Amino acid sequence: MNAEPAPPRVYPDALPVTGAWRLGDDVGCRQFVTLNDHRPFALEGGGALRQVTLAYETWGTLAADASNAVLVCHALTGDSHASGRQGNGHATAGWWDDMIGPGKPLDTDRVFVVCMNVLGGCQGSTGPASIDPATGTPYGSRFPVVTTRDTVRAQARLADSLGIGSWLTVIGGSMGGMQVIEWAVMFPQRVRSFVSLASCMASSAWQIAFSAVGRTALALDPNWRGGDYYDAPAGEGPHKGLAIARAVAQITYRSDEVFRDRFGRDLVDPVDVFGLWDRFQIESYLDYHGVKLVRRFDANSYLVLNKAMDFHDIGRGRGGIDSAIARVRAPSLIVSISSDTLYPPLQQREMRDALVAAGRRCDHHLIDSPQGHDGFLLEFDHIGPMVTDFLAEIEKQNA
Amino acid sequence: MNAEPAPPRVYPDALPVTGAWRLGDDVGCRQFVTLNDHRPFALEGGGALRQVTLAYETWGTLAADASNAVLVCHALTGDSHASGRQGNGHATAGWWDDMIGPGKPLDTDRVFVVCMNVLGGCQGSTGPASIDPATGTPYGSRFPVVTTRDTVRAQARLADSLGIGSWLTVIGGSMGGMQVIEWAVMFPQRVRSFVSLASCMASSAWQIAFSAVGRTALALDPNWRGGDYYDAPAGEGPHKGLAIARAVAQITYRSDEVFRDRFGRDLVDPVDVFGLWDRFQIESYLDYHGVKLVRRFDANSYLVLNKAMDFHDIGRGRGGIDSAIARVRAPSLIVSISSDTLYPPLQQREMRDALVAAGRRCDHHLIDSPQGHDGFLLEFDHIGPMVTDFLAEIEKQNA
Repeated sequence: MNAEPAPPRVYPDALPVTGAWRLGDDVGCRQFVTLNDHRPFALEGGGALRQVTLAYETWGTLAADASNAVLVCHALTGDSHASGRQGNGHATAGWWDDMIGPGKPLDTDRVFVVCMNVLGGCQGSTGPASIDPATGTPYGSRFPVVTTRDTVRAQARLADSLGIGSWLTVIGGSMGGMQVIEWAVMFPQRVRSFVSLASCMASSAWQIAFSAVGRTALALDPNWRGGDYYDAPAGEGPHKGLAIARAVAQITYRSDEVFRDRFGRDLVDPVDVFGLWDRFQIESYLDYHGVKLVRRFDANSYLVLNKAMDFHDIGRGRGGIDSAIARVRAPSLIVSISSDTLYPPLQQREMRDALVAAGRRCDHHLIDSPQGHDGFLLEFDHIGPMVTDFLAEIEKQNA
Repeated sequence: MNAEPAPPRVYPDALPVTGAWRLGDDVGCRQFVTLNDHRPFALEGGGALRQVTLAYETWGTLAADASNAVLVCHALTGDSHASGRQGNGHATAGWWDDMIGPGKPLDTDRVFVVCMNVLGGCQGSTGPASIDPATGTPYGSRFPVVTTRDTVRAQARLADSLGIGSWLTVIGGSMGGMQVIEWAVMFPQRVRSFVSLASCMASSAWQIAFSAVGRTALALDPNWRGGDYYDAPAGEGPHKGLAIARAVAQITYRSDEVFRDRFGRDLVDPVDVFGLWDRFQIESYLDYHGVKLVRRFDANSYLVLNKAMDFHDIGRGRGGIDSAIARVRAPSLIVSISSDTLYPPLQQREMRDALVAAGRRCDHHLIDSPQGHDGFLLEFDHIGPMVTDFLAEIEKQNA
C-alpha cells in the first residue's frame, strides 16, 4: 500500500482557477482548484489522474491565522453545495443548510466552512464524466477506482491552496464520515477535532452487499454500455439502472417505521383488477427518488463512489484498525441514529471504543429516531445542539 | 372485492392425475391434480385460469377419518419438496427436511403431511411457464396476477380431492405464513390449528419496497423480453435480472451479524490494484445464490409470486384486519426471529395481539437468533420442540 503523504505544505502550483464544468450546469457558488502538478495525482488503488480539478464552496471568512476553518464532507450523492439555495447550477438547496450559516451550529459568523466535491464525483470535481486530457474524451470506463484516502489527499491539497494548515473540525455523515475518520488517521496534525455521524471505521459485508446489488443492477442497463455512454443521445443514458441502484439504497437509508407511517399499503391507483405493475405508494416514492437522482447524478460516478465506500477500511495497509486509530490525536464527537440498519449504532460504538482504548477523548451520542440512516441529514434538532456544544468546547480548548 | 368462497365441498371433477411437467424435470416425488371444472378457476384479482394443475407431495398415511392431515405451505422460492432427497427432478433436498419425517416434529408416523406448489409457481403447478390451453404456448406475459387467496382456494380444492375436510394444522413461514393466516380466515371450519413463522397479516411498505426493486431489476434485463422469453435459446433467459432480484432478497433474508461473522471484508482475490468489479466474498456469496436460483426457478414465477406477497393483506375486502381476524376459530402458534429485519417481530406481535383481542388462543415465541428472516428455515433446534409441543396439545384437545 502507499506510504502516507508527506507532512502538509502549500503546493505553489495548486492554484485556484475557475473552469468550465463539462456537465453544462452553471458554475453557481462553486469555486475550482486545479492541481497543476508536474507529476500526476497517484491513486491508492493504482493508476493516476492528470490535471485533477476540485470543486468546492466556502461560507464565512477565513481568520488571518486560518484557525477557524471547518471541513464539511459530503455523502455518496451529495456535492459541494452543503448550504445555500437551489438554482443557478445547484439542482437542490444545500444538503445541510440547517447546519451551516449565521447563528447555525456551524456558525459562519465565526467559522469558515469548506465543502469539496469528492474525487470521482460529478459536480465539478474530476470524475468519470470529466475529459481525460490524454484523449480529449470523457474518461468513462477508463476512470480508475478512487478511494476515500484519495479524496482526503485531494482535500488536503485544497486546504493547502486555501492556506489552511489544520481544521478546527472535520465533520460529515455516512460516506462523509469515512472521509472524517481518514482525515484523523492520515493527517493527525491537521485535525484539531472531528465529528462523525452514522459512519464506520470499515464498511461491513452488509453495506457492501447492498452496494454491490446496486452496482450490478446499474451495469445490467444496456444503456450503461460498459461505462462509455457519454456520446449517447439525450435520454439514452443508464437512467433506469441508476434509478434502481438508487432505489435499493433509498430503502436502506430509511426505516420500516418511516415507510409504515408514511405509505402503509396505499396504492397509487386503487384498482379491483390487479396488475403485475400496479404500484403501491412506496414504489412511487422509490421511483421519484430514482428520477430525481438521475437528473443530477452521473451513473459512472455512482459506481466509482459506491465502490470507494466498499473499500473504506482505515486499517488497510496500516496493520489493522487499532493500529490506525492509534495515529489519531484529536478529540471527537460520534453520533448514531437508533433506527439506522445500514450503519447500525454498533459500528459507531466500535469506533468510540477504539478511540477510547487508544486514550483519545470521544463523546458518543445515540439519537433515538425513526428516520433510519438518513437521520444524519434530518435530525437537526438533535445534531445541531450536539455540534454546537462540542465546537464551543473545542474552541475554548484551542483559545 | 370478491365474496368469500362457498363452504368447503368435495368437487367430484377434481381428480388426481399424473401429468407431464413442461419444465422437463423428472416428476420425482410429485403428484398432480388437475381441476377439470366446467368453469374456469376465477382469480381474486380478475381473470381466470383454465385447466389448473396443482403439484403436491405427501408424507405419511392419511387416517381413515382424515383427522391427521397437516398442510405445509412453502415460501417464495420453495416448492412441494418440503422433505426428501435431492435428485430425480428435485434440484435440492427438501427445504424443511428436519421438520418432516418419522420421529420429527411433523412426525410422519402419526400425521399425513401435504405440501403443494403454489399457484403461479414453476415446480409443477400452473404458472407463467405453463402452456396456456387457449393458445398452446406458454402464458408468459399473459399470466394473470394471482394472490395468496387464490393459492389457498387451490389448496382447498386439493384437500377436497384428497378427502381432507379439515387440517390438524396448517403451517408455514414467510410467504407460507401468508397462506397459513389466509387459511384461518377463509376456511375457519377447515383449520383446527395453525402455525405461522416469521410472517405477517399484511405486507408492509418496507417489504413491498424490497420486492419492488427486485422486480424492476429483473424487468431491466433485456432477456426478460416483457415476459415472453420461453422460446429464447438456452442460456438467453433473464438470468442476470433474476439473479439480481434474488441478491436483493437474499440480503434481507439474513443479517448484518451473520454476514459480519461469515464474510467480514474478505476479498475473493486479494489485490493491490483496485478494480471496479473486484469482488468481496459477500458479493461472491450473493452471485452464488443468484445462479443457484436461476437454475431452478422461472423468472416470471418470481415476479408473479413476489407481487402476490405484496398484495397480501388479510383485511382487503373484509372490512380491515380486525374484522378478518374475527373470523378465525383455531388456536395458533406464532414464531418470530429476533434478528429478522424483513418480517420484524413487531409484525408477529401484532398478529398475536389481534388474535388475542378476538378471543383466540395464541402462543407467541420469539427465537433469539442472529440468522435473520431465514431463521425460520434454519432454527430447527428451537422451532422443532415448539411445534412438537404445540401439536401434542392440539391432538390432545382433538382426541
